[in-house]
Amino acid sequence: MSARFTVLTGGVGGAKLVDGLYRILPQNSLTAIVNTGDDFCHFGLPISPDIDTLLYTLSGKSNQVLGWGREGETWNFMAALKSLGGEDWFNLGDGDLALHVMRGMALSAGEPLSKIIARFAKTWELQLSILPMTDDAVATWVDTDEGLLPFQRYFVERQCAPKVRAVRFEGAVDAIPAPGVIAAIMESDAVFVAPSNPWLSVDPLLAIPPIRKALETTKAPVIAISPLIEGKAVKGPTAKLMGELGLEVTNYSIATHYGKLLDGLVVHNKDEAPQALTIARTDTLMKSPDDRERVARAALALAAGRNT
Amino acid sequence: MSARFTVLTGGVGGAKLVDGLYRILPQNSLTAIVNTGDDFCHFGLPISPDIDTLLYTLSGKSNQVLGWGREGETWNFMAALKSLGGEDWFNLGDGDLALHVMRGMALSAGEPLSKIIARFAKTWELQLSILPMTDDAVATWVDTDEGLLPFQRYFVERQCAPKVRAVRFEGAVDAIPAPGVIAAIMESDAVFVAPSNPWLSVDPLLAIPPIRKALETTKAPVIAISPLIEGKAVKGPTAKLMGELGLEVTNYSIATHYGKLLDGLVVHNKDEAPQALTIARTDTLMKSPDDRERVARAALALAAGRNT
Repeated sequence: MSARFTVLTGGVGGAKLVDGLYRILPQNSLTAIVNTGDDFCHFGLPISPDIDTLLYTLSGKSNQVLGWGREGETWNFMAALKSLGGEDWFNLGDGDLALHVMRGMALSAGEPLSKIIARFAKTWELQLSILPMTDDAVATWVDTDEGLLPFQRYFVERQCAPKVRAVRFEGAVDAIPAPGVIAAIMESDAVFVAPSNPWLSVDPLLAIPPIRKALETTKAPVIAISPLIEGKAVKGPTAKLMGELGLEVTNYSIATHYGKLLDGLVVHNKDEAPQALTIARTDTLMKSPDDRERVARAALALAAGRNT
Repeated sequence: MSARFTVLTGGVGGAKLVDGLYRILPQNSLTAIVNTGDDFCHFGLPISPDIDTLLYTLSGKSNQVLGWGREGETWNFMAALKSLGGEDWFNLGDGDLALHVMRGMALSAGEPLSKIIARFAKTWELQLSILPMTDDAVATWVDTDEGLLPFQRYFVERQCAPKVRAVRFEGAVDAIPAPGVIAAIMESDAVFVAPSNPWLSVDPLLAIPPIRKALETTKAPVIAISPLIEGKAVKGPTAKLMGELGLEVTNYSIATHYGKLLDGLVVHNKDEAPQALTIARTDTLMKSPDDRERVARAALALAAGRNT
């Protein structure tokens, strides 16, 4: 049987690694298990930011200028909504709305999210398996100095300004992994943890007990790609959040956070890394498709037991 | 007390007369009671075509080129929807979606349609009362030689091609008029029936028993504006449908259809009209705002007992 690979991922940064793996691996050998803790209902429409980012990224539809959303997006819906007194803190592009409306219709008809996303991916001719971490509702809440905030209120509306004290994943303990999630982790030749925010974007997956257990017991090497570059996060609140949680912004903290799950870590060229772990070094900044492939190759090589 | 006026209306053609009345009458003296038999749920979103056409027309947002929908509309939602395998027989513009999404959210929260529309009208600073005929579900079905079709399937998808045998209004008999509807008819100084399709767009209102009774018993003159011009309909399937129902395409048929409800009829300059009715003649083709005002003036004058 040909080799199979699995990647656990959040949104923008993680999608770049998935894209790198997707570009170099044989068709249909990759499974992406995606965070749905950021999912929320807005204007009655169910939004799955990380899944949608992945769909757009892998199908070549992502907006390179904004860094999120669809390419060639227009904003007439938001303008009209505003004229009707609608809240405008969360931008929904005109083209982007199609995913949310189609998803909402299918969910209302009783179709589980995993089947809906599989259908979207197939329609867009993607040759990998994209799985939500669960078909159940899991909601990320951020406990801050301004009180407990739903993830999108913290991340988008407040632009990560409040100081974080803790992160909670409502519903995670009882959530059942989506069909295929556990099998993908257990039966892969390697499992990767994308360079998404460990506390906000990867922890929701780890908070689902059967997923954590599968990662602990799989025979496959579990390899994380560090989100840090020279002691900073490329984008997003990772470094700020680590500081607020009292952690040093280093790969030691990343490795400690994942703990015994982890068999190896891909770090940026110049960065220090824990000696106890198997390490690969490369330029982990992913701007171009070539960058994405380079980081994916480093991760694959580390998993195969060959340092690059 | 200052004079009050009420108009019963369907979509595009009717909205032009309402606009004419709205332009010349004092602020807040006009009530429009609007057909909701065309309303339907599409992609999980509640669409109210006639109400929305009126909102766009009166607020100066209507698309003059298309003759329906919003000005400056874009279509990225539909394009994305199509790429996901969504049905594309009914076009939803990007800006137009805002009304449907906001309405859907409010309906889900338990707000009746009449309150939602009043809020939209207020937000857009419209100085008239726009009432759905009812807050209950009434659905227009067209019985055709291709079978029984929901209104939008007949009107939009099949472009009125099937031959009509009868029109039905599901739910009308038990529907309760929206708050204010009966009072508007009973307490107005004149009630107008817009030049909408009598069988498809006005009959849904007349199929609600308390509305018909109010029209029969109000002391106000009830004045219709004929949708026919030189034996043809300006737009839409009125003439074709009259032929299919075995009726002559004349103002006699229009007058007979409304029967004893009617106290007067505004007809086009050159057209014949029943002698038994009080008649006003003008050029009833409404292209410009001036045209709309002219027809509205003719209707108001006829109601006031002065032929123009």
